[in-house]
Amino acid sequence: MANHKGNEWQFSGSEAAKEAAAATLGAYTSVLYAMCDPNGKPSLPPRNKDPETSHTAEKAVAKVVLCGSGNAYAPSIGLPLAKGAVAEYLNRDLPKKLTADDVFMTVGCKRAIDLAVDILAKPKANVLLPRPGFPWDVVRSIYKSLEVRYYDFIPEKNFEIDFESVKKVADKNTFAIFIINPHNPNGNTYSEVHLKQLAELAKELSIMVVSDEVFRWTVFGNNPFVPMGKFSSIVPVVTLGSLSKGWNVPGWRTGWLALHDLDGVFKNTKILQAATEFLQINAKPPTIIQAAMPDILEKTPKEFFDTRGSFLKDKVDFAYSKLNHIPGLTCYMKPEACTFLWTKLDLSCFVDIEDDQDFCKKLAVEESLVVLPGIAFSQKNWLRHSIDMETPTLEDAFERLKSFCERHSITEDGASLKDVNGVN
Amino acid sequence: MANHKGNEWQFSGSEAAKEAAAATLGAYTSVLYAMCDPNGKPSLPPRNKDPETSHTAEKAVAKVVLCGSGNAYAPSIGLPLAKGAVAEYLNRDLPKKLTADDVFMTVGCKRAIDLAVDILAKPKANVLLPRPGFPWDVVRSIYKSLEVRYYDFIPEKNFEIDFESVKKVADKNTFAIFIINPHNPNGNTYSEVHLKQLAELAKELSIMVVSDEVFRWTVFGNNPFVPMGKFSSIVPVVTLGSLSKGWNVPGWRTGWLALHDLDGVFKNTKILQAATEFLQINAKPPTIIQAAMPDILEKTPKEFFDTRGSFLKDKVDFAYSKLNHIPGLTCYMKPEACTFLWTKLDLSCFVDIEDDQDFCKKLAVEESLVVLPGIAFSQKNWLRHSIDMETPTLEDAFERLKSFCERHSITEDGASLKDVNGVN
Repeated sequence: MANHKGNEWQFSGSEAAKEAAAATLGAYTSVLYAMCDPNGKPSLPPRNKDPETSHTAEKAVAKVVLCGSGNAYAPSIGLPLAKGAVAEYLNRDLPKKLTADDVFMTVGCKRAIDLAVDILAKPKANVLLPRPGFPWDVVRSIYKSLEVRYYDFIPEKNFEIDFESVKKVADKNTFAIFIINPHNPNGNTYSEVHLKQLAELAKELSIMVVSDEVFRWTVFGNNPFVPMGKFSSIVPVVTLGSLSKGWNVPGWRTGWLALHDLDGVFKNTKILQAATEFLQINAKPPTIIQAAMPDILEKTPKEFFDTRGSFLKDKVDFAYSKLNHIPGLTCYMKPEACTFLWTKLDLSCFVDIEDDQDFCKKLAVEESLVVLPGIAFSQKNWLRHSIDMETPTLEDAFERLKSFCERHSITEDGASLKDVNGVN
Repeated sequence: MANHKGNEWQFSGSEAAKEAAAATLGAYTSVLYAMCDPNGKPSLPPRNKDPETSHTAEKAVAKVVLCGSGNAYAPSIGLPLAKGAVAEYLNRDLPKKLTADDVFMTVGCKRAIDLAVDILAKPKANVLLPRPGFPWDVVRSIYKSLEVRYYDFIPEKNFEIDFESVKKVADKNTFAIFIINPHNPNGNTYSEVHLKQLAELAKELSIMVVSDEVFRWTVFGNNPFVPMGKFSSIVPVVTLGSLSKGWNVPGWRTGWLALHDLDGVFKNTKILQAATEFLQINAKPPTIIQAAMPDILEKTPKEFFDTRGSFLKDKVDFAYSKLNHIPGLTCYMKPEACTFLWTKLDLSCFVDIEDDQDFCKKLAVEESLVVLPGIAFSQKNWLRHSIDMETPTLEDAFERLKSFCERHSITEDGASLKDVNGVN
């Protein structure tokens, strides 16, 4: 039966997560950081920066820890007081009110995305995902063998959803359309009119709308954020969120999924039951943060978000203006939300750049600057630039980007690479 | 294509988690608590009790939160300083030392179990699980379609592993044997000799040993805890642990999986790679606790664990002595670890009890006392009694248990139920 040599073991590692793991932003990011010269300039964006977190959130968690009020196993769907606090918070902007029962606590927004995908994954079912979009929806769909179909945007129309592209790919096995609002990486927020049109379209297609609203607190343009839940009298809506982006607490791992029901559809279609079952066998967010949710959500002053918004607006303005002097990159819209610029790469401007991945690899090697390739967001030959850093650092990053682009761009006489670094 | 009636939606919830969710302890527990009379005696064990948590752990986390040193996304495999702290801690008892690279941080010990199952799950592969055992290994195996085979114990020999039962079920598709040490629910710890024998047997079978050591800090008998990792020069070992039980911080959700390698086998069999990939697409423990791990592990005084051990020993002694006067329940061994009594139910003593589940349901309804049925731990007609409560509460619980058993037991004249509650 078994062999008796110590080195011929019977077990071997599963490859079930291989493909999905390769599609994560972490996989792209770590490859690029590893290419930066450890003896050269410091890598940018700086890793492990120390963000200016909400003091209200810090104090709320410290209080729970020191008072011991978070030392208990929570129900798998979340602590009732955390669920209630999220419902109440979201209700500020909703005509149809949520109750605590409609909210499920998750380990960050990624796990809320997992939950949304898991409850829908069935043989033959497909979901519509944005191209470009935050890759986690794709990662989880790959892992759960849920068929993904992509819809597009109209860059020239402030990255509105291209409804024709939605209609083209939807069929009778389509279960949901996933949106990201504010959109990462496009950097826009959807208007009330546009979201209502989306709701009507989803109703026509008999599919639900899943809205990832994790960036709703980092909005600094003229368009206000409108939650998709506002249209849950038209179509069933699932919204996803978390503390990380808004309160600037990366790593705290506390998010939620909210079911904005319509005539009991989530109960009738067993979505509610599936959510409960998946949470019973999956990870829970730490109770010491769940128990602090009421204080965090109720007591954080508006000024905290305003200050953060001003900071980001300032960086976006700065980076956007710098981009005007860099050849080969086009930013269709100055972002009004999130923490990135999203640019289209014009390969014809460059002499030796094959595609977005090649661009990003060479940029990392030569300039120790990490910019993510569009392919990581399902859209080839675009680039996502982080702008969430102090101005001198951001200036350094965009100077390096400019040097790199100029060095690799086709010169006036059509010749090859410039040999002088960064000359105008 | 799509219908146009608002109530005929195309989506429906997945049932992929249904069977696994039904096998969780949470599922059994919530059914029983729901059967307790809300207008009768208070339910026991009390839910949401406020445990005496390690102050060192509380202070360490509060410090991280208030200093902002945990506000960053962690690598998916864990913060290096947390991994290093766990390695150093485990190394205290290990001849072959671990490095930080051998440790992976997980969302509690349950997620460490998930990871151990996930990396092994392949078509045709099977794993050997303890009967009885903490059900999470089974839950995850059901969910991942990993074949489970059970091995048994010898209650009369202090619940040692029945090695013959292991040999009987192992075959060439067996990848691992999972053990729990100290064992939940048996309540024993394995001797060094017994673990060495297990290592030799696993080597003979060419399988790895996965050891869940989450209860290693709640040991109060004469047998000291010996980590399985001590025998990793014989057989490859994976150990699992977390803060919850030892530091009495339920809900903090911070655990780990450690690979005790043997001649690079975990690399060669792609176990290392699988672990990394699964963690890339799975949940991470909160950074504010990960960053506190060095302080928690290094600075918690031995007295904290000693005090907790004395408390539990006192409760076990008390409950065990009470059990002597209760008909129909046999405890083969006074526990030397964990927080439970594990008893065998003799159905022939009772007049109207069908099985363990029937016993537990009737007990909940009549006495508002929740005892878990053996079937939840894969062993029918046994019972798991919690003893982790203050003495007056524990006395109340065992008085209710006695009343119930007497009321349902066969009287001397062979007649039916006594109609007087709890009379000797």
